[in-house]
Amino acid sequence: MNKLLYGRLTSEADAFLIKFNSSVTFDYRLSGYDIEASIAHVCMLHKVKLLTPTEKDIIVTGLRQIQQEISHNIFHWKLSLEDVHMNIENRLIELVGEIGKKIHMGRSRNDQVATDLRLFIRTSIDSLLQHCNVLLKTLLDLAEREADTIMPGMTHLQIAQPVTFGHHIMAWVAMLERDCLRIHDCRKRTNIMPLGAAALAGTTFNIDRNYVAKKLKFDGLCENSIDAVSDRDFAIEFCAVASVLMMHFSRWSEELVLWSSAQFRFIDLPDSLCTGSSIMPQKKNPDIPELVRGKTGRVYGSLMNLLTVMKAQPLAYNKDNQEDKEAIFDTVDTVNDCIQAMILVVTNLKARKAELLRATQNGFATATDFADYLVRRGVAFRDAHTIVGLIVAQAVTRNLELKDFSLEELQSFHKAIDADVFDTLIEAKSVKARVHLGGTAPQAVRQAIINSRKKLGII
Amino acid sequence: MNKLLYGRLTSEADAFLIKFNSSVTFDYRLSGYDIEASIAHVCMLHKVKLLTPTEKDIIVTGLRQIQQEISHNIFHWKLSLEDVHMNIENRLIELVGEIGKKIHMGRSRNDQVATDLRLFIRTSIDSLLQHCNVLLKTLLDLAEREADTIMPGMTHLQIAQPVTFGHHIMAWVAMLERDCLRIHDCRKRTNIMPLGAAALAGTTFNIDRNYVAKKLKFDGLCENSIDAVSDRDFAIEFCAVASVLMMHFSRWSEELVLWSSAQFRFIDLPDSLCTGSSIMPQKKNPDIPELVRGKTGRVYGSLMNLLTVMKAQPLAYNKDNQEDKEAIFDTVDTVNDCIQAMILVVTNLKARKAELLRATQNGFATATDFADYLVRRGVAFRDAHTIVGLIVAQAVTRNLELKDFSLEELQSFHKAIDADVFDTLIEAKSVKARVHLGGTAPQAVRQAIINSRKKLGII
Amino acid sequence: MNKLLYGRLTSEADAFLIKFNSSVTFDYRLSGYDIEASIAHVCMLHKVKLLTPTEKDIIVTGLRQIQQEISHNIFHWKLSLEDVHMNIENRLIELVGEIGKKIHMGRSRNDQVATDLRLFIRTSIDSLLQHCNVLLKTLLDLAEREADTIMPGMTHLQIAQPVTFGHHIMAWVAMLERDCLRIHDCRKRTNIMPLGAAALAGTTFNIDRNYVAKKLKFDGLCENSIDAVSDRDFAIEFCAVASVLMMHFSRWSEELVLWSSAQFRFIDLPDSLCTGSSIMPQKKNPDIPELVRGKTGRVYGSLMNLLTVMKAQPLAYNKDNQEDKEAIFDTVDTVNDCIQAMILVVTNLKARKAELLRATQNGFATATDFADYLVRRGVAFRDAHTIVGLIVAQAVTRNLELKDFSLEELQSFHKAIDADVFDTLIEAKSVKARVHLGGTAPQAVRQAIINSRKKLGII
Amino acid sequence: MNKLLYGRLTSEADAFLIKFNSSVTFDYRLSGYDIEASIAHVCMLHKVKLLTPTEKDIIVTGLRQIQQEISHNIFHWKLSLEDVHMNIENRLIELVGEIGKKIHMGRSRNDQVATDLRLFIRTSIDSLLQHCNVLLKTLLDLAEREADTIMPGMTHLQIAQPVTFGHHIMAWVAMLERDCLRIHDCRKRTNIMPLGAAALAGTTFNIDRNYVAKKLKFDGLCENSIDAVSDRDFAIEFCAVASVLMMHFSRWSEELVLWSSAQFRFIDLPDSLCTGSSIMPQKKNPDIPELVRGKTGRVYGSLMNLLTVMKAQPLAYNKDNQEDKEAIFDTVDTVNDCIQAMILVVTNLKARKAELLRATQNGFATATDFADYLVRRGVAFRDAHTIVGLIVAQAVTRNLELKDFSLEELQSFHKAIDADVFDTLIEAKSVKARVHLGGTAPQAVRQAIINSRKKLGII
Repeated sequence: MNKLLYGRLTSEADAFLIKFNSSVTFDYRLSGYDIEASIAHVCMLHKVKLLTPTEKDIIVTGLRQIQQEISHNIFHWKLSLEDVHMNIENRLIELVGEIGKKIHMGRSRNDQVATDLRLFIRTSIDSLLQHCNVLLKTLLDLAEREADTIMPGMTHLQIAQPVTFGHHIMAWVAMLERDCLRIHDCRKRTNIMPLGAAALAGTTFNIDRNYVAKKLKFDGLCENSIDAVSDRDFAIEFCAVASVLMMHFSRWSEELVLWSSAQFRFIDLPDSLCTGSSIMPQKKNPDIPELVRGKTGRVYGSLMNLLTVMKAQPLAYNKDNQEDKEAIFDTVDTVNDCIQAMILVVTNLKARKAELLRATQNGFATATDFADYLVRRGVAFRDAHTIVGLIVAQAVTRNLELKDFSLEELQSFHKAIDADVFDTLIEAKSVKARVHLGGTAPQAVRQAIINSRKKLGII
Repeated sequence: MNKLLYGRLTSEADAFLIKFNSSVTFDYRLSGYDIEASIAHVCMLHKVKLLTPTEKDIIVTGLRQIQQEISHNIFHWKLSLEDVHMNIENRLIELVGEIGKKIHMGRSRNDQVATDLRLFIRTSIDSLLQHCNVLLKTLLDLAEREADTIMPGMTHLQIAQPVTFGHHIMAWVAMLERDCLRIHDCRKRTNIMPLGAAALAGTTFNIDRNYVAKKLKFDGLCENSIDAVSDRDFAIEFCAVASVLMMHFSRWSEELVLWSSAQFRFIDLPDSLCTGSSIMPQKKNPDIPELVRGKTGRVYGSLMNLLTVMKAQPLAYNKDNQEDKEAIFDTVDTVNDCIQAMILVVTNLKARKAELLRATQNGFATATDFADYLVRRGVAFRDAHTIVGLIVAQAVTRNLELKDFSLEELQSFHKAIDADVFDTLIEAKSVKARVHLGGTAPQAVRQAIINSRKKLGII
Repeated sequence: MNKLLYGRLTSEADAFLIKFNSSVTFDYRLSGYDIEASIAHVCMLHKVKLLTPTEKDIIVTGLRQIQQEISHNIFHWKLSLEDVHMNIENRLIELVGEIGKKIHMGRSRNDQVATDLRLFIRTSIDSLLQHCNVLLKTLLDLAEREADTIMPGMTHLQIAQPVTFGHHIMAWVAMLERDCLRIHDCRKRTNIMPLGAAALAGTTFNIDRNYVAKKLKFDGLCENSIDAVSDRDFAIEFCAVASVLMMHFSRWSEELVLWSSAQFRFIDLPDSLCTGSSIMPQKKNPDIPELVRGKTGRVYGSLMNLLTVMKAQPLAYNKDNQEDKEAIFDTVDTVNDCIQAMILVVTNLKARKAELLRATQNGFATATDFADYLVRRGVAFRDAHTIVGLIVAQAVTRNLELKDFSLEELQSFHKAIDADVFDTLIEAKSVKARVHLGGTAPQAVRQAIINSRKKLGII
Repeated sequence: MNKLLYGRLTSEADAFLIKFNSSVTFDYRLSGYDIEASIAHVCMLHKVKLLTPTEKDIIVTGLRQIQQEISHNIFHWKLSLEDVHMNIENRLIELVGEIGKKIHMGRSRNDQVATDLRLFIRTSIDSLLQHCNVLLKTLLDLAEREADTIMPGMTHLQIAQPVTFGHHIMAWVAMLERDCLRIHDCRKRTNIMPLGAAALAGTTFNIDRNYVAKKLKFDGLCENSIDAVSDRDFAIEFCAVASVLMMHFSRWSEELVLWSSAQFRFIDLPDSLCTGSSIMPQKKNPDIPELVRGKTGRVYGSLMNLLTVMKAQPLAYNKDNQEDKEAIFDTVDTVNDCIQAMILVVTNLKARKAELLRATQNGFATATDFADYLVRRGVAFRDAHTIVGLIVAQAVTRNLELKDFSLEELQSFHKAIDADVFDTLIEAKSVKARVHLGGTAPQAVRQAIINSRKKLGII
């Protein structure tokens, strides 16, 4: 039986209940934040004269020693003490005696755990953003290397128009840049301090919440004590943001798997990033992107988990919320791993320029350029589209590419066609013509790279 | 067979395919935005000299007439024309002849539909935010009316500490204020223009994307054409934001249902907001909050829908994305309806002050105040907690409330207890003592109401 | 105000509430089942002497007339009457007068709507199963046609081993056969009758539930009245089963899209099943499988919707449950459409035998056969795997296929290799050797086709 | 670098990749099943003369020793060996030398892991079903104890009609009985053996799959080798079944929390199953049902996880599938824990008969009986409903219960009312009258208990 929680209860907790209820097997990960927040709380209690200087110093020293014990892996976590908070408070009383019993004055585990979790997510966000920046730089370097590399741009997985490999990679950059913006926005709502809300109503002690918030580098205070202990929006928002990021990674992964296939052969991954088969000696499997793609599921699952946990919960705090932590821990770990995996892949992949060009040349990729050519010679776009469609249909039947037609044959479809049409059909010209903001021209891609590097502060 | 899309295809579309593929049965809702965007596109084509002034005027006049036909419900939508875009283009050509065939120059349905959907969501967001503001005002008025009303604050659905009804409503306000911030952040990422990306690679025409963006009041341009047509983050983010909002509403609804029950009797809802039973003549059911709570499911479902649709899609555009629209439409409609429902409920609910006070008086709600009292008399918090726990345990056995003990009895638990302890046990005093920022004291609640009204710009 | 529901309520329902609460805009789809169930209920009331023969006949005639009005689209649905049940009861009273007021004796809308929805799902299941059978037959015919067609079997989207196209299609058959089993199991739990549970407690009238169940072809009775009105497991189970089916279709669709790409060219889809582009004249897009793949999202979403709706609902019936119907309707419609789409695609797709064979020949598909060959000559499997791995590595470096090595070269890797090894490397031999149950040999595939046809009862 | 998987790959695996790709940190849980299946495989290889008796014996002895090492926690799991399969095979070769290299003949990790996972789920299902039976028995005992206890049956959380506590518990029984049926159905599709499918195409060795299946107690064989290695339906179906079960538990939990509140006071939970607060000395929180309710989220999340993982995966096996295991392990553990928690709660909860009766007496619970009374005296049901509605409305205004009216007052509403109407208003009579199958009468409840016990085979 946990003496710290004795209160009115008069019988021992059931043994299964102790194990079932306990969260210390996973919330021990919050210990660093718990101690940091306790020290700030204790300093505040001293500031408002609820603790003497000596009391404060003794408690802070005790907490720092506990921090050491945990770091050195010699702290003895006890299931019967339920959670990280009670394990630490209990150990503090062991270490410093009666004075330790004063630490919980003016707070509750309800505001304490919300504070710890927000600090954990804030720190994780800062680390994630750093990793994202590394990935962005890696992508920008790749985009720059391949800014002139022609590849088939695809819609419906059919060859659509020529683009550059660099331009395609810049689409990935745009996706990840949005992820970073969302993570930033999530940080704003995470970095608000619940401490001071106590159980749900605030406290009768004359606490100084702003002092604590400043010490813990929070940007603001939760302005309603009931909401402070009941709110888990920040955890859900984090999972939502992570889900979109993983959705992006699943799309990149899908492309990496496709591009690595014997059918596409658009890229090469080094052997060191591939794995073999236990039965098939020839296999070289792109396991990393496949696994990243698969891990999308667990992040979506955690989002749905937390949305379900919070659905229809009456205020203020219910035990259901204990379920928030594992979902968050798993999401942080998964996203971190996947970013690192992507950095590895992007750093090491090689675009197969010759294959990419060849693929672009088979599939009428410049048919739209042909139509645009007609438009510039006075044909209405919809008519131009129809004319080129008929030419393509004949090409399919005769197993030709557009450039294989003679000028006379082409002119039989429309008299406005002239010898310069063949220029239009060259992939590199097609690409170079799309020079406006956002277009695929190497020049536009290079400008986009500069813009993104500026955002990253690296030029 | 759809002539507009003829292209290379040489046989009629299968009849089932026409119906299966068609989106016009739902995307007709985008028609206003489609026309607005087409007019801006046409004005730009004229500006860059791809259309003559006359051509521009003819097309714009045609588009405005189509807008009228749609408004007056006399537009003939054709399934065989697949979608809203082709229905409008086709009608335009009917109305203005050959010139209409020029409108699609320099764009594709891929960038067009993304533009329309962003305009739809942006407009929906603006309307949602207005409704949220009305709801916030209604809540603030209720909180003000009930700023002094004592009620039992609950954790674990057990009586925890006295709070005020106004303070509880301010927790709802805090939740909704966060929703508004998230909606604003979502708007930032929504209000970026894809137009100009064409199919996926940009266009060979010298288009002026900034001109169009300004005309359509977009805040910026999608800076990569492949990403522009493939990105549906904004739709997912909108559903994620809406899911959290609905999660909040499900929690309020849960409380409203509880509070309306014969067991709680904390509030009264007027007959006009309740429904009866087909069999039980006495029933007065709180259908509105129940239905709102139930509708949480469909919004969560739409979020999962869109996350699934986008998972592992290769770039740039795939037909899968046609599935984005119905989820968005349903989410916008659901959230709008639920906000309106909540405004009705909040406006009309009556707090039953006497019941609320009585409920607070039975359940040791001021036990924490008692412990705090001991702390102020020198007892360490953890010991104070234990002492009051023992008193409560005895009270339960003897079927007493705390105030029913004699001073002598209380002193037998700890000698520091004095006659002024009974003051501490009065609910109104308990509440008034929690006066710090975020606390439940009426004074703190009134300050919070002022702060929220300032944010709304209504004082 | 709805007179039928008047009960104790003393004021008009709010206008918005009428619209918000009403379900008749979608539950009208249940009208056929509602009337069928009402007729059975009325016949039972007559059997147990609660209605006279004349009363019964008048009511039944009235109900049949209403059925006619609905079929002929002349029934006037009224929002103010909330739902399909009250619309029909109200019309019945209009048609037959006072006697109509007796119909609701011994039942409630709570058991009525659960009965209607179960009848709807049961009927939908029977229809789905028929469509699945057609699809199964179509797949079996395709598998038979292509039982000898060699194609590259893939794992990790890399060429793994030769298989036959027919064998691959039989994997699809196995998936769909499991879906049918799950649908059957779901039917068992759906086809149980709630009627007689009334509001939640049963009724004081001496009803004969078994008589009604028999008349409505239910397999059994809900054996607890509270559970009868609160249970929506069958709806969730249906969505779960549909989600797995759609997951299967998403996998087939993914393959169809891949196989249709210019990179794979494994199959041809006819023009009539493809669509073009509004801008790119050459496009022939496999829209059907893409759209099917996308529709997976809405079915997953409906599953999550219903799981969310039911989470933490106290018994017995709450208004939240009104949300069950649209999710079910949409799921039934989506699955039906997608099955029909798949039948069309499977019927019309053409395997490109030459391409399939060529793809198999480039990629060391028979390396495992080579290792097995060594095993049969006494090499331990793990060593055989290593040896062939080394040969493949050299082949990659030298840009060879396995059959391009000379015997001497191969023998330098292991002396047990003999001239007959080249036989082993022939794709058709590889396939033929896998003749055990479940293997890819044409003979095994043909046997599997026979087995599946037997299960379908078509041989 | 993993020698076992060397194959064609020529460079060391990246260090991060080794960690990222490895599954042994969690799939070690499959080791017992992996060894069991390997022994069966080896016995079969011997039976078909691919291994000599001595070879078989040596390998089996080696595998049993490994089993011992794992049981005694002295097995050294190596991350670099990726997974449970390679760890065991590698150790086998260490133990028995060259002969160990023969074990992987005729199989692949693809069919091996699918076999292991199916064995794990089958075993988990069998254990779950046993636990469910214990819970069912516990519920039936409670239902029997409280078969006569009157309580307010609720719809919309409003008092609807009197029911018995036993009847309500039998609703829970009905829910759990359906769960058991679904688990049984899931077992049928789980207990099918993939082994023999090898990588995806079967094997060239003359294996005897039926022999292995019989030895491993599988009910049948996967009949298509490609499907065998790609199918994860059984895992999804298990999570879907578990999700519905957890949804049920969330509903029971919701009721347990409500019933434990100070407002309801319908039941008592012993102190040993409740927890206190770190700040509020009086708290006695129903943590167990709250936590069970919260854990619903993680099971829903795992379902969504797996559905996402499998969406749009091309056949046959992709690395994405490695993500299946943790979701399954967590779901099995969660459901097991929650069943045990529910057994504890149901065993120990006490119905507060007096409170339950008092609650039933305030709220017009017998209004429907009153209406039925009028029907039996010739009033049409709809009119009877209206009349009683008017009486209730007056009762509300005058703050009366129905039985407080004088006969004269009642007769002023309808002349058919006689003195015996007051009998109808007695809760116990109301309950006793609902005696048909599924009704709430104690007699019907006792019959239902007998029926359920028969199904369990305990009478």
